[in-house]
Amino acid sequence: MRMFDIIKHKRDGLELTEEEIAFFVRGYADGSIPDYQASALAMAIYYQGMSARETGWLTTHMACSGDQVDLSRIPGIKVDKHSTGGVGDKTTWAVAPIVASLGVPVAKMSGRGLGHTGGTLDKLESIPGLCVEQPLERFFEIVHEVGVAVVGQTGNLVPADKKLYALRDVTATIDSIPLIASSVMSKKIAAGADRILLDVKCGSGAFMKTPEDAVKLAQAMVAIGEEVGRTTVALISDMDRPLGLAIGNALEVMEAADVLKGCAPDDITQTCLELAANMLVLAEQGSLDECRAMARRQVANGEAFERMKLMVGALGGDARVLDDYALFGQAACSKDVAAPRAGYLCHMDTEGIGMASVALGAGRAKKEDAIDMLAGIRLAAKTGDRVEQGAVLATLYAATPELLEEGERRLLASLEFADEPVAERPHFFARVSCAGVEAYD
Amino acid sequence: MRMFDIIKHKRDGLELTEEEIAFFVRGYADGSIPDYQASALAMAIYYQGMSARETGWLTTHMACSGDQVDLSRIPGIKVDKHSTGGVGDKTTWAVAPIVASLGVPVAKMSGRGLGHTGGTLDKLESIPGLCVEQPLERFFEIVHEVGVAVVGQTGNLVPADKKLYALRDVTATIDSIPLIASSVMSKKIAAGADRILLDVKCGSGAFMKTPEDAVKLAQAMVAIGEEVGRTTVALISDMDRPLGLAIGNALEVMEAADVLKGCAPDDITQTCLELAANMLVLAEQGSLDECRAMARRQVANGEAFERMKLMVGALGGDARVLDDYALFGQAACSKDVAAPRAGYLCHMDTEGIGMASVALGAGRAKKEDAIDMLAGIRLAAKTGDRVEQGAVLATLYAATPELLEEGERRLLASLEFADEPVAERPHFFARVSCAGVEAYD
Repeated sequence: MRMFDIIKHKRDGLELTEEEIAFFVRGYADGSIPDYQASALAMAIYYQGMSARETGWLTTHMACSGDQVDLSRIPGIKVDKHSTGGVGDKTTWAVAPIVASLGVPVAKMSGRGLGHTGGTLDKLESIPGLCVEQPLERFFEIVHEVGVAVVGQTGNLVPADKKLYALRDVTATIDSIPLIASSVMSKKIAAGADRILLDVKCGSGAFMKTPEDAVKLAQAMVAIGEEVGRTTVALISDMDRPLGLAIGNALEVMEAADVLKGCAPDDITQTCLELAANMLVLAEQGSLDECRAMARRQVANGEAFERMKLMVGALGGDARVLDDYALFGQAACSKDVAAPRAGYLCHMDTEGIGMASVALGAGRAKKEDAIDMLAGIRLAAKTGDRVEQGAVLATLYAATPELLEEGERRLLASLEFADEPVAERPHFFARVSCAGVEAYD
Repeated sequence: MRMFDIIKHKRDGLELTEEEIAFFVRGYADGSIPDYQASALAMAIYYQGMSARETGWLTTHMACSGDQVDLSRIPGIKVDKHSTGGVGDKTTWAVAPIVASLGVPVAKMSGRGLGHTGGTLDKLESIPGLCVEQPLERFFEIVHEVGVAVVGQTGNLVPADKKLYALRDVTATIDSIPLIASSVMSKKIAAGADRILLDVKCGSGAFMKTPEDAVKLAQAMVAIGEEVGRTTVALISDMDRPLGLAIGNALEVMEAADVLKGCAPDDITQTCLELAANMLVLAEQGSLDECRAMARRQVANGEAFERMKLMVGALGGDARVLDDYALFGQAACSKDVAAPRAGYLCHMDTEGIGMASVALGAGRAKKEDAIDMLAGIRLAAKTGDRVEQGAVLATLYAATPELLEEGERRLLASLEFADEPVAERPHFFARVSCAGVEAYD
């Protein structure tokens, strides 16, 4: 078998065989297939796509290219949750405790932030003492003790995807639905989940700009789940404006705690409850309506918040910060951003707002950059709100006045105003499963 | 400027700017742009094509990536001739002497064979003592002395194309019309020609399988010629069967000499005369009909053959072999191939016949392989001919009986027979110039 023929077959629109895909994944991971052939194949896939079978084979062989986590030591159905990324997405830190507080174990590995999206792990590390890098044994112990652990990736998971993703990133071949889908799913499968809930974002702050494209990506991932025997459900949720009002690491952990205390903004609260309910359905805890009620109850009775504190403590963190946010400390400088005109805030370039947060110090422009845990943005207005001229749109937090100025410049450049009100956008657009696409009302 | 953006622009169907193309050619030649980005761009070009302007810029910047031959020391209009390659194509060795014998200088650099096509230089080296690797000064001297020199490439011509072609060869991105066109034309331009005659082959032994595809490639190359101010004309000629009856190095030189002695098969004779006439037209020697008559006359009066012997002598070769072919020596073994059935020879897989010749030792499977100058095939029948069962189809020449058997197996596998006669194919299909496409009657 020759890599040349595999590239040519895909280039000419043929379906690759499982043997061809296995040959590529193995050869690329072990270095016998050079980058320049892999990038030519990736570009051919960009144009020709992949069938459900091809995408399934690519996913499976990538998932098997390194270590695989065996979660069978934990009893019950293990459900993982994955977001395709956005701005202000702190859902994991509220959803996981809700689900765990109902006796459904959550054993999850997460990633760090790059670009305009924040990283789940980075956020939690804003809690003093907390360490997300745990050895595998301790990971299992924590799940056993408190029912929930979200940690950094351990071991050598999906090295083939790691190498391929880095290559795609520099060859303009990231935005291919089968390649995105197999990249995400191979990691979830290697991380050991039995069932997978995907939160596929759409809008100005997401990779997929429209609900239609998000549905296509979701369908590809759900099909892979079917193909490999891991039931997968995807919710299509809004990322045309930031989720909640807080952007930045400590700021987002506070808002996640607010969700569990029942005092967070409506959009982030509803999003967390719906994700938790869908995880519970996948764990066979009841119908969707029953699970929604269960999730609401765990917030109302305070059990989910208690579970969050237990998890923080088990990871070595000082859980008192969740009761008294002042213990997080405070950024050296802050600044209110005033509305330049009166009117309706009609559009937020959410990616631009994510980059404003990065500019303030809350994210990484390059992999090796350090993060300012206290930097970020607390929004006071979002798309649809009416503001008066000079009203506070947001408060910015950073280490220096210069950073604040750059953040303000970027934030204001990301906002559009109009004289007329704009139509309300829903929090969720659709739910995609093997049964098909159901629209949210 | 970033290579990532250049790939993305082409991927998305935008026209690249001259600056972007120059950045790519320079960066790829100097190693600052890695192979994996160049192959992704080549694959994007495979799908998106290139405009005439883009192809022109790519050609010009590749042509300028290394040395450029300055032919201005030779007086008059210098016309180069290039064939896209086929089996039995020995036209250069007859055409160049015809043109030179009329006082039109021919200063040409040629290549070696790889794959199923023979190499112009390899063929001439079958003449004892002849050396095609000449220093640039000697090249000019020979043109001055005898009016014609065809030698190996000197200096560091088009290094960007050399590198890109090698990459395309292993990433399934060879068959892209703008990339083929710019590769050919960049070499012709760097080699210094004022005007260029292209012989674009079509059929089973050619890169382009149909006259329509050959016309497209020809149009792309003619457009580049216009773009860079080097008038270019292309003839679309047949390569659905080998050209002439001889395939192999010494065998082909003998047949080229036969053309100039007036005793070669009709197809190769007509092809050489038409190519010579078109070169003469480009050199402003008269109308096409006048130039056809001139070319015929130079063969009939023996002047073209005398010029061929002068050139061979100037390159250090023993020109007596052209009068007495026995001086070439003889292959150790030979074998007649018998027709397996009676009927009409209705199709020749000419690429397969080229590979049969390679198997006999006449060509290279890999760049570093040695060539057996006396090996090859002398056909006794071609497409359209009626044969009786057991009649001789061809005589094979090789160093060992084992090679003869492999050659016979491949040759027979490349021939198809039928009970009914087949339609005659023309030698030429069309003539493509900036004035448009003219069909041959």
